[in-house]
Amino acid sequence: MTVFSYQQLYSFTESVFLAMGCSAKDASTATKVLIAADLRGIDSHGVARLSGYVRLWEAGRINATPNLSIVHETPSTAVVDGDAGLGLVVAPYAMQIAIDKAKQVGTGWVSVKNSNHFGIAGYHAMMALEHDMIGMAMTNASALVAPTFSSEKMLGTNPIAVAIPAGNEPAFVADMATTTAANGKLEILQRKNADTPHGWVQDANGNDVTDANILKKGGALLPLGSDREHGSHKGYGLGAIVDILSGVLSGANFGPWVPPFATAGFMQAGETVGNGTGHFLGAMRVDAFRPADAFKSDMDKWIRRFRSADAVEGKSVIIPGDPERELEQIRMLDGIPLLDPVIADLKSLATRFSVNFKLD
Amino acid sequence: MTVFSYQQLYSFTESVFLAMGCSAKDASTATKVLIAADLRGIDSHGVARLSGYVRLWEAGRINATPNLSIVHETPSTAVVDGDAGLGLVVAPYAMQIAIDKAKQVGTGWVSVKNSNHFGIAGYHAMMALEHDMIGMAMTNASALVAPTFSSEKMLGTNPIAVAIPAGNEPAFVADMATTTAANGKLEILQRKNADTPHGWVQDANGNDVTDANILKKGGALLPLGSDREHGSHKGYGLGAIVDILSGVLSGANFGPWVPPFATAGFMQAGETVGNGTGHFLGAMRVDAFRPADAFKSDMDKWIRRFRSADAVEGKSVIIPGDPERELEQIRMLDGIPLLDPVIADLKSLATRFSVNFKLD
Repeated sequence: MTVFSYQQLYSFTESVFLAMGCSAKDASTATKVLIAADLRGIDSHGVARLSGYVRLWEAGRINATPNLSIVHETPSTAVVDGDAGLGLVVAPYAMQIAIDKAKQVGTGWVSVKNSNHFGIAGYHAMMALEHDMIGMAMTNASALVAPTFSSEKMLGTNPIAVAIPAGNEPAFVADMATTTAANGKLEILQRKNADTPHGWVQDANGNDVTDANILKKGGALLPLGSDREHGSHKGYGLGAIVDILSGVLSGANFGPWVPPFATAGFMQAGETVGNGTGHFLGAMRVDAFRPADAFKSDMDKWIRRFRSADAVEGKSVIIPGDPERELEQIRMLDGIPLLDPVIADLKSLATRFSVNFKLD
Repeated sequence: MTVFSYQQLYSFTESVFLAMGCSAKDASTATKVLIAADLRGIDSHGVARLSGYVRLWEAGRINATPNLSIVHETPSTAVVDGDAGLGLVVAPYAMQIAIDKAKQVGTGWVSVKNSNHFGIAGYHAMMALEHDMIGMAMTNASALVAPTFSSEKMLGTNPIAVAIPAGNEPAFVADMATTTAANGKLEILQRKNADTPHGWVQDANGNDVTDANILKKGGALLPLGSDREHGSHKGYGLGAIVDILSGVLSGANFGPWVPPFATAGFMQAGETVGNGTGHFLGAMRVDAFRPADAFKSDMDKWIRRFRSADAVEGKSVIIPGDPERELEQIRMLDGIPLLDPVIADLKSLATRFSVNFKLD
């Protein structure tokens, strides 16, 4: 493990996107979104994925110079065609349309097709905050999750992010996979050769197991709730709603047809029922409901009351977004630790594109 | 247990609402919403609650002749003041506004204050279906749920319902409390003197217990996910989002300040930070995104693919809404079974209001 400064990783990542042929503006946007994941501690979605985007571009599945367009719209809605551009660029473009529509008519809702992995959902939802808007972002993804009673992988980890502005308190930012555990947590256990807790994964026949490598053996992640008795049908329902709003509503692929990200052995997209991966983004102007100051003052009251709730011994109640924001402040100052395999990956990208990757 | 026909329960319930002073239109709406719960098998939210609404009305906390009004609006949003009317009447009024706005500008979003228990969320979300719209409904409720690491009850069971139209297949209708188990399931175990599974409830100190009566002893329901290791922070986050969109965005009460429903010993509302209970309702016109026929045809494909997914031995994958719709068809024909204490409750209402309660 080595620690890199934000600026080091920013410059390098931007160079790679520029070398792929992205415009200066797109390279900057994609870099900000990607490294936001490293800053906020969702390491699986940050520079560790950079080589994956490059492989998809090499395979002709990512278009570095997309022609992003609105293919249909009403005053409060739009469908965006991402033209196979980087999801890291397509999603902020779509979120900006949602924000612009919210300025005009109170709310804006944009469903996106023909995109791919968009980084962390929270980044896009948080774009709304500076406009005193509530932001929402979700995406479908290739199937890793078995619905309740299914032995087949049918849904992605399909995250939902909701960002809500406050006054003096920091914003409320929830960003969650609709599974019991995100795939990144499984990857951490795989590296440690450790087992998962019960209730995270099942084997190819749908049995409860604790093998962190079970997805490579026909197993699946479990929806939030783990099993029927603990509400897995609710986690499945939430993942399904994300899939439908992102995929079916836009004309993207959905369910088991969502194309895979660039992990080894999964490069080929199979049969399709739509275009690329789908996202769903929303923005609601707070003052389309209540004066923003009154709302934000009540949000401060909400946050303080929950933060000071009676807690179990040695713990305290956490406001969604607190841990990620605190880590972001630390990593912006102290740097971002990367694992050796990730560093090796970045070094080979440096060679591949003849860009400089400073190690100190 | 005795079985009553839909028509018997409908006539009786409507008579009670009329006797409370509701208009003919409001009595009819409230009755439809209430009995939809009995038909769909969410027995805890149906006629079993009728006496609760009456007690709230007797205590002056429900206004049988409310002046429902829009207090603020934009082309795609509104805030409704329910004037302490029956939630069973206020929510359909607000949902109709959301639908009307969606007709005009693509989507409509209505946050409601000064309301109370609105029955099953699914009813309101499903109002969108006949307009080829996606419907959403959520509500906050009095605190029964402890956030992750909290030993204090801070959130209601705060349900989320999403209804999505299909073509030849029946609609997708998810309607879920954001807890591992709904309070109604606890009530069933209480009547049977049975324990809960682990992961449903905690005691007053936040310990995992299986006592179905623990809520009366300072315990709490757990958010979807049960504990931190299984994602309870996600269930807490979802319940919090429902609370904020319903309560903070409208100017209703929120968090632990949401007033209780009329259960014995909880009649008095305490300190308030807003007006009554809050709801949040939304409608999105499908053809504000894609032609409705193309969308509905893809929804049929989605539903058929998921319904035919490989399943574990002896089971099949269920589409959200299937069990409730099937039960609704059965109960509409064969009648609705009521437990003896519920029948006794209805009989005392019959006496109280001098209305006829036919037993056969």
